[in-house]
Amino acid sequence: MLNPGRFEKQLRFLVEIDQVKQVLRNTILMDASRRENDAEHTWHMAVCALLFKEYANEPNLDLLKVVKMILLHDLVEIDAGDTFAYDAAGSSTQTAREQQAAARIFGLLPEDQKNEFKALWEEFEAAQTPESQYAHAIDTFMPILHNYQTQGLQWRRFKVTSDQVRQRNQVKIKKGSKVLAEYIETLLKDAVEKGYLQR
Amino acid sequence: MLNPGRFEKQLRFLVEIDQVKQVLRNTILMDASRRENDAEHTWHMAVCALLFKEYANEPNLDLLKVVKMILLHDLVEIDAGDTFAYDAAGSSTQTAREQQAAARIFGLLPEDQKNEFKALWEEFEAAQTPESQYAHAIDTFMPILHNYQTQGLQWRRFKVTSDQVRQRNQVKIKKGSKVLAEYIETLLKDAVEKGYLQR
Repeated sequence: MLNPGRFEKQLRFLVEIDQVKQVLRNTILMDASRRENDAEHTWHMAVCALLFKEYANEPNLDLLKVVKMILLHDLVEIDAGDTFAYDAAGSSTQTAREQQAAARIFGLLPEDQKNEFKALWEEFEAAQTPESQYAHAIDTFMPILHNYQTQGLQWRRFKVTSDQVRQRNQVKIKKGSKVLAEYIETLLKDAVEKGYLQR
Repeated sequence: MLNPGRFEKQLRFLVEIDQVKQVLRNTILMDASRRENDAEHTWHMAVCALLFKEYANEPNLDLLKVVKMILLHDLVEIDAGDTFAYDAAGSSTQTAREQQAAARIFGLLPEDQKNEFKALWEEFEAAQTPESQYAHAIDTFMPILHNYQTQGLQWRRFKVTSDQVRQRNQVKIKKGSKVLAEYIETLLKDAVEKGYLQR
């Protein structure tokens, strides 16, 4: 039996988050045709998390929790927008903007689901648990793969250096997956040699 | 430690499925701006499955399995294209086209993952288990909600009748969620009254 007040809130949330499909990222699709949006990125990340589970530093992590975190991690960007990984100015105000967004967007839900979803988002943001660290590894891995596949389209455009990517790799990917971080090191060397990325 | 041959296959799959972002559906975004693609739809469905778990006919279903099925269910459309729910001609060849696509796309993966992902897709297609029936309920629920939110944009364009939608509701949604099927009945009545949908 449906509780109409509860269901109304759930529907309101479901309609609201349709806007994630309109939040554009700096990442370009692998066929170099156009920028991708947060919904597309999130779906791709979730499949990647299933695919690469064997490479997580903690092999016994809770995969459902990882996938939930991934599915919800970019909802705050409906209000706060996407912050480019190498945008220092944007990054400085990012936390405050995203906190406000989380309060509003998760606040649309019934109390129990608001608490559950917001806690998952906060755990992702804090990046202290195996699940959140693995989710961050995938979140950082994907745009590097997109850049490599598009011959460094956005790396070249924004004059990103290999040291900048290497630092993100060492901080974000290594904490969740040493195996993937090692692979990224060889990919970066190759990308520099091919001229996709500045030394 | 990375097995290069295995990892190469996983990467190849991850790059291949980027094309899901280019498979357009007949569904229009809720702000009526443009058609949505399969990656966006799949992400939205996965969040919906988390949100509405309490409405599944089988409350103790395996939610991770549901989400995996959803994340993978539209990969075959890279080759087979999207088949509109009310396209009888397209539907008659859909199964054969999708079987071929599944063999090719899941065939990119290492053997163990090919078997796991293909089995999940086949379970979804067969729609005999609580998980696959709930996933189908969500898959059918979402475009109805999109149509309602856009004042019946595609229902009106393709002259869909309320009986056609009602039949899908009774077959696809009710098997996975009687509660959602009941809600859709009231939504359809309202849609007819408002002129979004033909009687």
